[in-house]
Amino acid sequence: MNIIKDYSEITGVGHRIVAGGEEFQDSVVITDDVLKKIEGLTEFAPLHEPAAILGIKAFKKILPNVISIGVFDTSFHTTLPEVNYMYSLPYEYYQKYKVRKYGAHGTSYRYVSQRAADILGKPLEDLKLVILHLGAGASIDAVKDGKSFDTSMGFSPVAGITMATRSGDVDPSALQYVMEKENIKSMDDMVDILNHKSGLTGISGVSADMREIEGVMHENHRAMLAREIFKNRIIRYIGSYVAEMGGIDALVYTAGIGENDIMIRQEVADKLGYFGIKVDPKKNDIRGEERDLSAEGSTVKTLLIPTDEELMIVRDIERLRK
Amino acid sequence: MNIIKDYSEITGVGHRIVAGGEEFQDSVVITDDVLKKIEGLTEFAPLHEPAAILGIKAFKKILPNVISIGVFDTSFHTTLPEVNYMYSLPYEYYQKYKVRKYGAHGTSYRYVSQRAADILGKPLEDLKLVILHLGAGASIDAVKDGKSFDTSMGFSPVAGITMATRSGDVDPSALQYVMEKENIKSMDDMVDILNHKSGLTGISGVSADMREIEGVMHENHRAMLAREIFKNRIIRYIGSYVAEMGGIDALVYTAGIGENDIMIRQEVADKLGYFGIKVDPKKNDIRGEERDLSAEGSTVKTLLIPTDEELMIVRDIERLRK
Repeated sequence: MNIIKDYSEITGVGHRIVAGGEEFQDSVVITDDVLKKIEGLTEFAPLHEPAAILGIKAFKKILPNVISIGVFDTSFHTTLPEVNYMYSLPYEYYQKYKVRKYGAHGTSYRYVSQRAADILGKPLEDLKLVILHLGAGASIDAVKDGKSFDTSMGFSPVAGITMATRSGDVDPSALQYVMEKENIKSMDDMVDILNHKSGLTGISGVSADMREIEGVMHENHRAMLAREIFKNRIIRYIGSYVAEMGGIDALVYTAGIGENDIMIRQEVADKLGYFGIKVDPKKNDIRGEERDLSAEGSTVKTLLIPTDEELMIVRDIERLRK
Repeated sequence: MNIIKDYSEITGVGHRIVAGGEEFQDSVVITDDVLKKIEGLTEFAPLHEPAAILGIKAFKKILPNVISIGVFDTSFHTTLPEVNYMYSLPYEYYQKYKVRKYGAHGTSYRYVSQRAADILGKPLEDLKLVILHLGAGASIDAVKDGKSFDTSMGFSPVAGITMATRSGDVDPSALQYVMEKENIKSMDDMVDILNHKSGLTGISGVSADMREIEGVMHENHRAMLAREIFKNRIIRYIGSYVAEMGGIDALVYTAGIGENDIMIRQEVADKLGYFGIKVDPKKNDIRGEERDLSAEGSTVKTLLIPTDEELMIVRDIERLRK
């Protein structure tokens, strides 16, 4: 990155915002009205949204004549069909409080899905993709007709697959039982444990970092178990999305683990031969570079595409400042 | 059922017990020691277990010389591999409190899986099955090597697919948010809503009964949505289990909705053509009778097998009283 020597070089500022609710279906120019709406969404992401708002206000003060763009992690998922975003809860929770699935990592999925279409040489609209964004926060997205069709994160990023410190899906009754046994007084405290002390770190007791887990997994049963569970939840979601979309054209890996964990990619592929997914071990012997990993005879392509959320934000600034 | 005229005709009593924990991997003769262990599992099923214990004690008193057998809804699932029964929670919750997936409907799955093997003319051990037990309480089971391999219910029966009044899977953060908004003070109260006011009844606002929902679905969007969500969750789980087992030999329908809802069976099959699942509309035009519903060219069989949990309990009595 170049060091900016003169503020007059700055022609636009992009703010990444975690929660855009149902309101923001695309990136937007942040007017005073938009800022008010973002402030109204603070409850959806109480840890992240206030910091983003602070950043927006600071840049507006320092650079009052430069355009500010809001880029929402949820906007890519506002295309989810109702059947996929609604929970089987009393309907009034949606009507009154907009409790539904929002998803996350949308900026990454937007970038990666378009790159996948470029690599495959087909219009994105004609492809069915499953994208695995596997970082410390990890989620899986089903892309159909060029749009997000289903996604593993839910109302919040705690749901879905096993993550570094997040639990992913869990039976609420198990939490009720734990709360009683451990004398956890509030659901806020329980959800805090689900966000920060669960997932790979909770199972393994070793680390939240997959590299450290892999370093000890042959001597440590819980480390091995954490990694097996991580793979299993990925496989379950891939199967769900293959079923929901009636087959897929490609499986795409991105983000920290997705881009760098050669073994995880190979082992997941080896479990999915039934779907026509085959990864060539030689092509797969790579980290952080764009590549088609598919073995010959594979009817579903496997791609490695390093994500670039910053580029997407810059592109949104360029598109919207005109 | 024949009316018993003389108590001396009774040669054994079978008790269906919801929670058997990790302890009971098969049905057992209820000795005093066993009864104590069952009493120790009350916390796992606080609504059901005390009633079962009362029944055991009553029959022991009335018929002191007749053998009592405990048949556990969970025992069929004690074969689940660790990777499928463990949650991505802090590991000590399992060590200290045995918080894990237990599943339910095991007696039904035991009966139906064996019948499926008989109909298919192959040893159960050689088959990979997905069994859909779709009643008011509903779950899905993956059967591999003759054993339960994965199942949609979890620590409790509230998890998994959408049910008559139960939510199935839901993001715990969504519950945290609802509890704050609705001023729900305890997780017990929230889980009560998940058990009794969610699912089909919660979404539709019409009924917990699929027949009533289908009666109004063309005029009532929420009724239609409830039914679409019900099918969607079934399709997601089938996909998960196909992925986990690397393909399946047969899909089996049982219990109230599974045995009687012709449209649901057809519509689910129509979504799963990619997996080689095809249902013949003429064969499928049937309720409550054992039949192969598969269309010609279907590589995965679809079977309808009315469940018979009572017969399984009687067989267990016969087997164990010798």
